[in-house]
Amino acid sequence: MSVTAAQGFTASGVAAGIKENGNPDLALVVNTGPRLAAAAVFTSNRVKAAPVLWSEQVLKGGQVSAVVLNSGGANACTGPLGFQDTHATAEKAADVLGHSAGEVAVASTGLIGVRLPMEAVLSGVEKAAAALSEHGGEKAAIAIRTTDTIHKTAVAQSPAGWTVGGMAKGAGMLAPGLATMLVVLTTDADVDTPALDTALRAATRTTFDRIDSDGCMSTNDMVLLMASGASGVTPEAAEFAEAVREVCADLARQLIGDAEGASKDIRIEVVGADTEDDAVEVGRSIARNNLLKCAVHGEDPNWGRVLSAIGTTSAAFDPDQLNVAINDVWVCKNGSVGEDRELVDMRYREVRITADLAAGGESAVVWTNDLTADYVHENSAYSS
Amino acid sequence: MSVTAAQGFTASGVAAGIKENGNPDLALVVNTGPRLAAAAVFTSNRVKAAPVLWSEQVLKGGQVSAVVLNSGGANACTGPLGFQDTHATAEKAADVLGHSAGEVAVASTGLIGVRLPMEAVLSGVEKAAAALSEHGGEKAAIAIRTTDTIHKTAVAQSPAGWTVGGMAKGAGMLAPGLATMLVVLTTDADVDTPALDTALRAATRTTFDRIDSDGCMSTNDMVLLMASGASGVTPEAAEFAEAVREVCADLARQLIGDAEGASKDIRIEVVGADTEDDAVEVGRSIARNNLLKCAVHGEDPNWGRVLSAIGTTSAAFDPDQLNVAINDVWVCKNGSVGEDRELVDMRYREVRITADLAAGGESAVVWTNDLTADYVHENSAYSS
Repeated sequence: MSVTAAQGFTASGVAAGIKENGNPDLALVVNTGPRLAAAAVFTSNRVKAAPVLWSEQVLKGGQVSAVVLNSGGANACTGPLGFQDTHATAEKAADVLGHSAGEVAVASTGLIGVRLPMEAVLSGVEKAAAALSEHGGEKAAIAIRTTDTIHKTAVAQSPAGWTVGGMAKGAGMLAPGLATMLVVLTTDADVDTPALDTALRAATRTTFDRIDSDGCMSTNDMVLLMASGASGVTPEAAEFAEAVREVCADLARQLIGDAEGASKDIRIEVVGADTEDDAVEVGRSIARNNLLKCAVHGEDPNWGRVLSAIGTTSAAFDPDQLNVAINDVWVCKNGSVGEDRELVDMRYREVRITADLAAGGESAVVWTNDLTADYVHENSAYSS
Repeated sequence: MSVTAAQGFTASGVAAGIKENGNPDLALVVNTGPRLAAAAVFTSNRVKAAPVLWSEQVLKGGQVSAVVLNSGGANACTGPLGFQDTHATAEKAADVLGHSAGEVAVASTGLIGVRLPMEAVLSGVEKAAAALSEHGGEKAAIAIRTTDTIHKTAVAQSPAGWTVGGMAKGAGMLAPGLATMLVVLTTDADVDTPALDTALRAATRTTFDRIDSDGCMSTNDMVLLMASGASGVTPEAAEFAEAVREVCADLARQLIGDAEGASKDIRIEVVGADTEDDAVEVGRSIARNNLLKCAVHGEDPNWGRVLSAIGTTSAAFDPDQLNVAINDVWVCKNGSVGEDRELVDMRYREVRITADLAAGGESAVVWTNDLTADYVHENSAYSS
């Protein structure tokens, strides 16, 4: 499982002392080759954390030999000194691993606007390098958690002898483009950088970009895919893309399942859309409707709030043609009252909302979760 | 106070039996002239309630002799039968008042997707007509409440002998364009329909359109301004516009102050913007950030969440030039750590966030409130 499921990777996770509670907080993933190809997607938030600015530069070279990830501090909104901290972290890792700093990516997650305790980070990098192991993927996944209640890993194995593995962290600030989310994917397939980039962008577009826990876009998001080529097998492009998508979808589903305070996972499927963009716009609008998210929390099939959310979009539809199902009961037909809302059973954790725009043949699925008092509590107390 | 502060108006509020708990739920406001000029703005939600569709038609004529408002049911997403219900309500009011139905506006608020109990509505209209009084404004304001904990009225009086008065309801689903909000404004100034329209649009643009309690846009919003001309005074356009703006700002502030579950009112001022549109876009993005709203609830000056919200906009700014003050303490300077966050005192209900984009001389103020467990509770249980 995790990032060491694929051959050609070692990993570790240690307690570096960045978190005051002594929990694991620093992870290292190293590509031992023979290939060092890599691709990544980053947050589209214009306020970008120092590690995002650094790693964007590293990725321009198309090669990543190692990635250092820390929880316990986002190193965002920390100015030029924060960028120097990221640079020093990459230099330290390069130094102890015998790599070039220009091929070391860095990722951070935690509170914004606070400098990292660099003594702890730098000694942590040494400690993590000493702990590197072909079985270290699980420990790495544990060390990148913040408010995550569980660590998230996934794997897809091809009968042809290659593997895609990955780990993710994220529990809040999840929103398209992307989320407060760090994801590292590894593969031993022998794939070059352009092919990795194509597969990764296609996969994130329909997975991580379509989960939205709270509409809040992070300053630190990164999804990194590294290929070691260690299996010696070059897969078909479509097969490889599907494996990457599968691992991304699995991890994205785990992120929603562990969203802060959530008691329900909500799968929103928009069908009958004129275009895929319309379907995604409507899906996101529904996913971000606080009133609906409260209603789902209360197991109340309040389809009026779905229509109200659809009505704020620019998608093609006629209000009198809209249909909405909650857990397969079509409670709204032709923009008005449909089947009896008493028929809707919302006791289970997964809730399915289907919105039919009756305007075409396109569709999209967006995931979100309910809005709960626990979410409020967790995010009122986060930095205190 | 309220809609009968201006001469030439009568009003009433009665318990018609629409609400199961027997609270007042139907209001009537009648313009006794001599003038019947009126202007209105409606929700920009594309899913519009039947009374919105009806009243939009009425307002095309530029004359409104009466408006019937009910709480206890939104008559939204109720199809052609719901529209017939609104039509019947207007006909009934016209009948008992001796007016033309084409000059009777209708407004409804409450749960979406449920037909109104028309027997109660129609007998309620009769009852309300019988109760009309020059002192009935307060009762009308009380009858339009849903989850409002207090009724909202405001008045502005000109030394020249004319008055603008108003009432509002709204406590959730408040969002620009507009809110789940019904507002009736009256004036005895002698002003024609085009002048009313100009003054009303200017006033709502910087008041009701800049409150955002939960990012959710209603299907039922209406702000109606009626002029009776009973004072016989035609004011200067600028003076009249200012009086309308003042009453709107007062009511808008009251709406935010009574927002569902709120414990803090948050005034977001965006300064240093390149354009007013940029300032409004940034203000709204901050106002809609659930994580920030939770932080304010926890009295946590988490400015990183302000920067994170700014970063999702298309406004002109350089991330390294952004400044943020919370209650006048500049906790973020030049995109990084500023004054000590311990200096911020957030114990009081009103919280002021100032975001300086350092990109120009434009500004805007947007109001929101915090996100609380009470909001979640109230909106989980609303329809049950």
